Amino acid sequence: MKIHNFSAGPCILPQEVFQEASQAILNYNNSGLSILEISHRSKDFVAVMEEARSISLELLGLQNKGYKAIFLQGGASMQFLMVAYNLLEQKGAYLNTGTWSSKAIKEAKLFGEVNVVKSSEDKNFSYIPKGYMIPTDVDYFHCTSNNTIFGTQMKEFPNTPKPMVCDMSSDIFSRDMDFSKFDLIYAGAQKNMGPAGTTLVIVKESLLGKVTRKIPSMMDYKVHIEKESMFNTPPVYAVYVSLLTMKWLKAQGGIKAIEERNEKKAQLLYSEIDINPLFKGYTAVEDRSIMNATFNLNDESLKEKFDSMCKEAGINGINGHRSVGGYRASMYNALPLESVEVLVDVMSDLERNA
Amino acid sequence: MKIHNFSAGPCILPQEVFQEASQAILNYNNSGLSILEISHRSKDFVAVMEEARSISLELLGLQNKGYKAIFLQGGASMQFLMVAYNLLEQKGAYLNTGTWSSKAIKEAKLFGEVNVVKSSEDKNFSYIPKGYMIPTDVDYFHCTSNNTIFGTQMKEFPNTPKPMVCDMSSDIFSRDMDFSKFDLIYAGAQKNMGPAGTTLVIVKESLLGKVTRKIPSMMDYKVHIEKESMFNTPPVYAVYVSLLTMKWLKAQGGIKAIEERNEKKAQLLYSEIDINPLFKGYTAVEDRSIMNATFNLNDESLKEKFDSMCKEAGINGINGHRSVGGYRASMYNALPLESVEVLVDVMSDLERNA
Repeated sequence: MKIHNFSAGPCILPQEVFQEASQAILNYNNSGLSILEISHRSKDFVAVMEEARSISLELLGLQNKGYKAIFLQGGASMQFLMVAYNLLEQKGAYLNTGTWSSKAIKEAKLFGEVNVVKSSEDKNFSYIPKGYMIPTDVDYFHCTSNNTIFGTQMKEFPNTPKPMVCDMSSDIFSRDMDFSKFDLIYAGAQKNMGPAGTTLVIVKESLLGKVTRKIPSMMDYKVHIEKESMFNTPPVYAVYVSLLTMKWLKAQGGIKAIEERNEKKAQLLYSEIDINPLFKGYTAVEDRSIMNATFNLNDESLKEKFDSMCKEAGINGINGHRSVGGYRASMYNALPLESVEVLVDVMSDLERNA
Repeated sequence: MKIHNFSAGPCILPQEVFQEASQAILNYNNSGLSILEISHRSKDFVAVMEEARSISLELLGLQNKGYKAIFLQGGASMQFLMVAYNLLEQKGAYLNTGTWSSKAIKEAKLFGEVNVVKSSEDKNFSYIPKGYMIPTDVDYFHCTSNNTIFGTQMKEFPNTPKPMVCDMSSDIFSRDMDFSKFDLIYAGAQKNMGPAGTTLVIVKESLLGKVTRKIPSMMDYKVHIEKESMFNTPPVYAVYVSLLTMKWLKAQGGIKAIEERNEKKAQLLYSEIDINPLFKGYTAVEDRSIMNATFNLNDESLKEKFDSMCKEAGINGINGHRSVGGYRASMYNALPLESVEVLVDVMSDLERNA
């Protein structure tokens, strides 16, 4: 049976990527060696790292604009800490849109003052706060572009003279915009970019070197940039599979093309949520994420039936996060439209048979 | 042609592991899903993490002795920092046996005072310093059990009332000893344990919680222990392949059995280095590593010939590190005796034909 993988992350990657990634474990580039057993200093892997760094900038339209791309470890959680280590001299401004923003705020507080410019915690993060001011005395403004758990997404970003830092873990490479608005972008790989185990950081070099504290080598963006993401052994395989996925995306037509497909998938599912009287969406309509759709049954007694129909249809990974409940369908880049159609069909079937 | 992979790391892993690791990319546990696309909170992966944590303790004979095993990211370089974050209140004692010890010392200095009890830098780290005293006023003693770059290995560890911390990145699971002498052991996976991308940390729980500084969540061993190594998304695939490799080791008879094979491989190569007049070993004989043998040609003009003979024989990865020069043959657990025989044959052939 075909599985429709709506997992929130780690999540579905393109089937072609799995094929090539599997082959590389046995024999990489016809070397007779597995990609897992070659030196990270070998020509073969240095080429992978260089291409991964350059294609990530290319996909975002950020080449030759003063940005550097590095692949680190530790996920977004490590970036909560590294951002503060490298940028927080006095005060950071943070927009609180959910669990991950809250965690970023918590870690930043160890390094300086944090000004939470606005929060949507009052309604369990079911919307994106608007109409906030970014103070002029902060070192930077930090936001989370997409909130995987709650299913909200920032559609607009503020104009601010302060450097803007954005956690794009769950929607990077999914929609087009002017990425040069941002001074630092980071994203754990395990949604649209690759498998768990590496984190992409894209940073404007001019932003760095301004704090007075001493930064440990592994926490220092400048060190990783200078060493071209090879200060120490990088997570070889995670970077390699990320490269395959980014190349796949480029071959699909890049971010603009994938955004159209993502919009189509999201519209299909949200239409059903709105039309079908058995379901209701969790978030404010204008803040709906095109990556993660969160919704609930109006009548919880239908849960068992709906779950079993989903299972029969091969639908996987749509249980909501415990802090929201209900359902969450994650529709990352590699999820085919067909999978959303199957889910929508099941939702309609439930309505007909309920 | 069969490749004999003497790479210093990332390095050879068992062929059976590559087979299973490749298959899991396409279809894990007959789930119809790739191991790269399943949630780290899924039953399937939680079972992997639990088994990996428990088998690592089992292999070292450290179950039920107050130790916890966690799988982190960032390699040994991140541990240089985390050890200091978690343990260095006033002063740490460090033995300096090479590049990695030196880096550990550098990072620790950001957190407190460092007492270098002895160093072998005077002879470019070609021996292990002996006869040092560990001061009584330090928080812990830190050492590096095996020095990948220089090819030296500690054969004995000091008796000290202070907690002993050991970087075992390049010889973990390769030789038997009483591991309960150590209070904290860490090892980047990419030698004997698995692919690059995860780091095993084994720590006596009673050691933690004694420093007064506030520790960022990702730096805090207690956080990772409490969350059973799932504080955030772990490096799923690197942990999975590490588990496969540890299970392979257990099936081989465990550390005792592999140590015998490692000794045999090392003896074969070092005998040739000592007997063959064309070569000389780099390190003090009593400190020779059974993992990484470093040696030089007495007559550099033979280099081209030797290199081409090695290449013809399928020998890969024996170039010495730039800070030592010459050759380095790494003979990790998964390297078969046959590969060492091939190398020794080429060395003998060179002698006959030189």
